Amino acid sequence: MKLIRFGEAGKEKPGVIIDDIKYDASAFGEDYTETFFENDGLSRLAEFVKHNKLDKLAEGTRLGSPIARPSKIVCIGLNYADHAKETNAAIPSEPIIFMKSTTSLVGPNDEIMIPKNSVKTDWEVELAVVIGKKASYIEEADATNYIAGYVLHNDVSEREFQLERNGTWDKGKGCDTFAPLGPFLATADEIGDVDNLNLWLTVNGKRMQQGTTSNFIFKVPFLIAYVSQFMTLLPGDVISTGTPAGVGLGFNPPVYLKAGDVVELGIDGLGSSRQAVIAYAKN
Amino acid sequence: MKLIRFGEAGKEKPGVIIDDIKYDASAFGEDYTETFFENDGLSRLAEFVKHNKLDKLAEGTRLGSPIARPSKIVCIGLNYADHAKETNAAIPSEPIIFMKSTTSLVGPNDEIMIPKNSVKTDWEVELAVVIGKKASYIEEADATNYIAGYVLHNDVSEREFQLERNGTWDKGKGCDTFAPLGPFLATADEIGDVDNLNLWLTVNGKRMQQGTTSNFIFKVPFLIAYVSQFMTLLPGDVISTGTPAGVGLGFNPPVYLKAGDVVELGIDGLGSSRQAVIAYAKN
Repeated sequence: MKLIRFGEAGKEKPGVIIDDIKYDASAFGEDYTETFFENDGLSRLAEFVKHNKLDKLAEGTRLGSPIARPSKIVCIGLNYADHAKETNAAIPSEPIIFMKSTTSLVGPNDEIMIPKNSVKTDWEVELAVVIGKKASYIEEADATNYIAGYVLHNDVSEREFQLERNGTWDKGKGCDTFAPLGPFLATADEIGDVDNLNLWLTVNGKRMQQGTTSNFIFKVPFLIAYVSQFMTLLPGDVISTGTPAGVGLGFNPPVYLKAGDVVELGIDGLGSSRQAVIAYAKN
Repeated sequence: MKLIRFGEAGKEKPGVIIDDIKYDASAFGEDYTETFFENDGLSRLAEFVKHNKLDKLAEGTRLGSPIARPSKIVCIGLNYADHAKETNAAIPSEPIIFMKSTTSLVGPNDEIMIPKNSVKTDWEVELAVVIGKKASYIEEADATNYIAGYVLHNDVSEREFQLERNGTWDKGKGCDTFAPLGPFLATADEIGDVDNLNLWLTVNGKRMQQGTTSNFIFKVPFLIAYVSQFMTLLPGDVISTGTPAGVGLGFNPPVYLKAGDVVELGIDGLGSSRQAVIAYAKN
């Protein structure tokens, strides 16, 4: 099953994609929240979709994040050896964890706003995992039972804020619009071998990132079990699994986003997204 | 006004403290959530309390966190010069930001559970600020308008996870039970000079921390304005402002919490809290 949320930002409604066609599932009556995932929402939604005729969405309908704002977005740093190398970082001996403010969440095709005073806004195509049930101190062998599905994520990052402004990476990861998520959440059964997915990202049509999850340093089940040793994961929480080589910071000299740029990204089986970059503007 | 939440963990009801007596305000019909703060809940609650007779709480009623789970808990690192010195850290040139998983939130007198495989669980008495309205790129001069109130916080920290396990501080800050909050949220008008509050912490009756917010490196309005440059703060969000000297890591040799210990802490005008320390136990 492929889940979407659509409509005005902040007022998204639930939908599904069937055979590449987007449908309105708002009659299901529930948003894709912690409560939804916690109460076997995926199975109930599948039943609902099976027994109800749904309306197609109008062409051009805005997509939001395919999940409602989660309790947290946990990210894994430097989980591809090629990316660690391009940023002059050592291969981690165990996963690096940081967190994105959940206010950074936006739809897959929304704009990326360069923060005020930013000069180093960068891109990162990532495979993100959505947690399906509460996970605390779980074993790697059990971890796949805790996965609701997978989703495409651009872990937008301000490198000066992240690395040069005194303090943890969180400072450069949680700005508004820094987590375009989607287009859809694919349930785990939709994705064959999660360790063999191609992922790519272009800026203004130029290929910047081209990787494969077969190069993960730490694989998805290990990551879920690992994070669950340090904090309880709730249904709907997101773990973003790191980015392959090709980020702006890795170029010599580095290349960063500017207003007018267009970022496009995708992962096998998880579709693609497109973000136009705009300058900071006070709301 | 002093706000409390009481009752079974996960099912807390709203209450208030008036003249040191705890009252049930569940007839108000709203929990102290983002929605409450966003919709002028403090003023409406004050009106409700003024016009309704409330029942006293039974002696011994459990207190929960005085606010419902917020969108985020942002913490400031090394905001007292004496604490920076004891941990052999430089005085920050600008605030250090890190985040606690909100699943770490517990009541003021709940137990602190030492995480599995932890050997360095430490304490940190802190003044925490609760945000009253959405704050993005705000000015320091306006920052007090964004404060709902203040609350006592024990920023419990696992130093090995935080500092020696590869990655950001977040890894040692968000374990379950690592954020005892309360006993109550005091609205800003209840607290006189926030830059002149004593704060203290004892372990098994022995004074470990004794500080004053007059030693802040960065004051509350600056911190709110600063954090709002990097992420949008939502109503109900928490900013914890750092801890003074006297944490376990600062002793030579370091001293950490063990099962059976009792931690007590307090801040002028914000009451005190008490946490018994227990060993890890699988739920």
